[in-house]
Amino acid sequence: MSCVYVDSLKDRIVPDELRGRLMSPEEAAALIRPRMVLGFSGFASAGYPKLIPQAIAARGEAVGLTVLAGASTGPELDGELAKAGLIACRAPFQSEKALRNDINRGAVSYCDIHLSQMPKYLREETFGRIDFAIIECVMIDAEGGIVPTTTLGAVDTIVKMADSVMLEINTSFPTELKGIHDIYTGGPGEVIPITGILDRVGSPTVHCPLEKIKAVVINETPGLAANFQAGNDVSDRIAGNIIEFLKEEVKRPHYHGKLPPLQSGLGNVANAVLYGLRDSGFKHLTMFTEVVQDTAFELIREGIIDGASTTSLSLSAESRDELFANLDYYKERIVIRQQDVSNNPELIQRFGVIGMNTAIEADIYGNVNSTHIMGSGTMNGVGGSCDFARNAGLTIFMTPATAKGGNISCIVPMVSHVDSTEHDVHVLVTEYGLADLRGKSPCERAELIIEKCCAPEYRQALRSYFEHAKSVAPAQHTPHDLSQALSWHVRCLKTGSMHSGE
Amino acid sequence: MSCVYVDSLKDRIVPDELRGRLMSPEEAAALIRPRMVLGFSGFASAGYPKLIPQAIAARGEAVGLTVLAGASTGPELDGELAKAGLIACRAPFQSEKALRNDINRGAVSYCDIHLSQMPKYLREETFGRIDFAIIECVMIDAEGGIVPTTTLGAVDTIVKMADSVMLEINTSFPTELKGIHDIYTGGPGEVIPITGILDRVGSPTVHCPLEKIKAVVINETPGLAANFQAGNDVSDRIAGNIIEFLKEEVKRPHYHGKLPPLQSGLGNVANAVLYGLRDSGFKHLTMFTEVVQDTAFELIREGIIDGASTTSLSLSAESRDELFANLDYYKERIVIRQQDVSNNPELIQRFGVIGMNTAIEADIYGNVNSTHIMGSGTMNGVGGSCDFARNAGLTIFMTPATAKGGNISCIVPMVSHVDSTEHDVHVLVTEYGLADLRGKSPCERAELIIEKCCAPEYRQALRSYFEHAKSVAPAQHTPHDLSQALSWHVRCLKTGSMHSGE
Repeated sequence: MSCVYVDSLKDRIVPDELRGRLMSPEEAAALIRPRMVLGFSGFASAGYPKLIPQAIAARGEAVGLTVLAGASTGPELDGELAKAGLIACRAPFQSEKALRNDINRGAVSYCDIHLSQMPKYLREETFGRIDFAIIECVMIDAEGGIVPTTTLGAVDTIVKMADSVMLEINTSFPTELKGIHDIYTGGPGEVIPITGILDRVGSPTVHCPLEKIKAVVINETPGLAANFQAGNDVSDRIAGNIIEFLKEEVKRPHYHGKLPPLQSGLGNVANAVLYGLRDSGFKHLTMFTEVVQDTAFELIREGIIDGASTTSLSLSAESRDELFANLDYYKERIVIRQQDVSNNPELIQRFGVIGMNTAIEADIYGNVNSTHIMGSGTMNGVGGSCDFARNAGLTIFMTPATAKGGNISCIVPMVSHVDSTEHDVHVLVTEYGLADLRGKSPCERAELIIEKCCAPEYRQALRSYFEHAKSVAPAQHTPHDLSQALSWHVRCLKTGSMHSGE
Repeated sequence: MSCVYVDSLKDRIVPDELRGRLMSPEEAAALIRPRMVLGFSGFASAGYPKLIPQAIAARGEAVGLTVLAGASTGPELDGELAKAGLIACRAPFQSEKALRNDINRGAVSYCDIHLSQMPKYLREETFGRIDFAIIECVMIDAEGGIVPTTTLGAVDTIVKMADSVMLEINTSFPTELKGIHDIYTGGPGEVIPITGILDRVGSPTVHCPLEKIKAVVINETPGLAANFQAGNDVSDRIAGNIIEFLKEEVKRPHYHGKLPPLQSGLGNVANAVLYGLRDSGFKHLTMFTEVVQDTAFELIREGIIDGASTTSLSLSAESRDELFANLDYYKERIVIRQQDVSNNPELIQRFGVIGMNTAIEADIYGNVNSTHIMGSGTMNGVGGSCDFARNAGLTIFMTPATAKGGNISCIVPMVSHVDSTEHDVHVLVTEYGLADLRGKSPCERAELIIEKCCAPEYRQALRSYFEHAKSVAPAQHTPHDLSQALSWHVRCLKTGSMHSGE
């Protein structure tokens, strides 16, 4: 591990004055004091620093940290810091098991925030002043321009709002990545001048005054690549239902024969939908999304997707090699933006995006829970799902009809937590079918969701609840028996299953 | 009631060819057939036609109507049509008792939609083709330009999407209102070019091809004026808590010493907040809102509010007289926009609006119910509250701490319905205090809400629930006992009170 300047670093650390600040991860970690507020690069488990957080964890002294990032990081950051017991507060999203366990046992305060809004929270110093920004990057140029990796997230705001900065320069990324990013800084009251998916309106680098940079660490290893999530029968059937719907939907006059830009969450259903679109003959697709994963990347390579706006590439090792080998091709087809631009309400609405996100559970009236297990425990967080669901032209939520080997019905009388409300869920899909809820009253939605989306083995019980609720509810707009509405969850917590055993 | 052309109407019905289509309300009503889809003008109980719907109701033949409007209308429209049993389906908002009762007994399908999105639903023909647009207006000019009243709402889209149009020309509005509206029609992918509250970027009139106009009816009476909602001790204390907070909040650096544009819902708390701001010495206020009521109008008159963007003026008879007597002054300070512009996510975000809306109830974790009584019955609808809450720079929800003479606590363990989620509620206020929830974990929010917002007589019970939930919940992120979370509502439905009687 380098901690002295060698000539091969001259393209990575261009400003002479930074050479003396090159140090080992351990030396950098020693600068971190207890109860500091740290802002890390990282979004969608990619683009986060690895050596410095591991050294902070190994040192073990900096307790009570506030850990901020663009979104989720990975095991070397959230995982190691959590295992070392150093995190007191985390925002705005996480997906690491060790950290999740700490949150759910009450040891870490977790503030789950819409990803588009995190930079605003940082600008307003909601979590206090950032003591150190700790940023994985590709290089820093003569003007103090940081070239981020293939993940941008909130790096620009974190660097701007931090008192001091540490760079973890990852030499496994080619310096030719410069130019794939578009760092745009608009002021309040300004129009965001982006009218095409691939418009570039800002700078290719994140500016940082050199005097703020207190440490530079070199990392020569690429770190973990994303695992490709292969489809299965259930995800393929969910995707099939969405494809069939979109093929009809696009015939409606206001689409003029062309699908609007797609946003798609992570995971195997999202992959299957994109493959399905290709196999249905769709061409000239575009994406306005927060993460591009392998399938979308493959369709960009094939020329099926013309262009993608994102804040992170979450790629397998194979796709990363393909990207680096053909950067000129991909820089014409991919723009990496800050998360407050990739997920911006103004732009999501302007483009009439089709938002596709995963639900943990949905209820018969069309409310969606994206975050909580049995009402109390966090899974990951709301992420960008509501950025898109609230402002998209068409919002689709998808979930397998059951979980835990059939012991949990993902369609329930009442969700145990609400993230996207009945007013924001246009379409609900499971492997059994698709319910188009637009323009429907709550009771009309319940009929559709029970018949189309619910698993057959829960359908009679759900219909019984609905009929019972209508017979006892104080009003018939959204009939509920509040003494029974959450009984499926209560039963599951007691017996391990939502089945009544009757 | 005029049904033949007289010379005094020449400024109201300028195109010669429309003179022959002048008819009585009864003749117009005879054109309405059962199961038609009708699009009415009307928003915030203002600007809706009165004579034609009353005649439709009196005739009583047109059953099974789909009734669409900008938002709420009044007793002569929703009220009379509901009492006549003619409404089968209603969207996107209502506030009439007779109609609410029909919805809550299951006789009317009600689709409760974000007001900014209603024009999109209409453009996509989600409720089918509109058979007749029935529009209250001031006049129609030689080019087929309709001058709306002081309420615009969705008139432009309704007229555009309707097969046929009826005009109810209300001669109590002066023709000099022409020029107060800004009718902007952007296409998909276009920037909305509004960067100042009072910018005008469109046309002063709603264009309608003359051949679509099948009936013109004259109404010489102004109809009901809005009742001014006077404050009381509770509303004054809520407002006082908000004012005190805003006076501190505006000192934070990102405000640069100036409050952003305000959005404020209807009612006496909203009135008290505006008066309170004036009395605290705030000047050069602006509003970016959906309704301007008497208090805001008074502050415009006094020069405390420099300008207001709205889609409706809901004024008392006195304020209406003042407006008409000094139209030149007010046309420089008020712009009336379509509801998809007044409530537009792009603009709400661009201006960093401070959104202030009323909750029916909120829970200890910061979720807000704006629409449902005891989980099942609709009150009015979600209106524009989420348009603003989801995209505003700062979102405040306010509610009295108790209702029904203290028998209902408006702060509960778990809300019986969610409209604005924990991720969208920045500040919660009652007469007892204000909880600033930004950057807080669910449990930190619970501590604040119980101590600051809950009524003293419910505080111990709420704290007991929270402690009990922590002791039995399967996880500590958002601790709930799902078998007890809705028990306060269940008790209230059984006994008429949320008090446990212990």
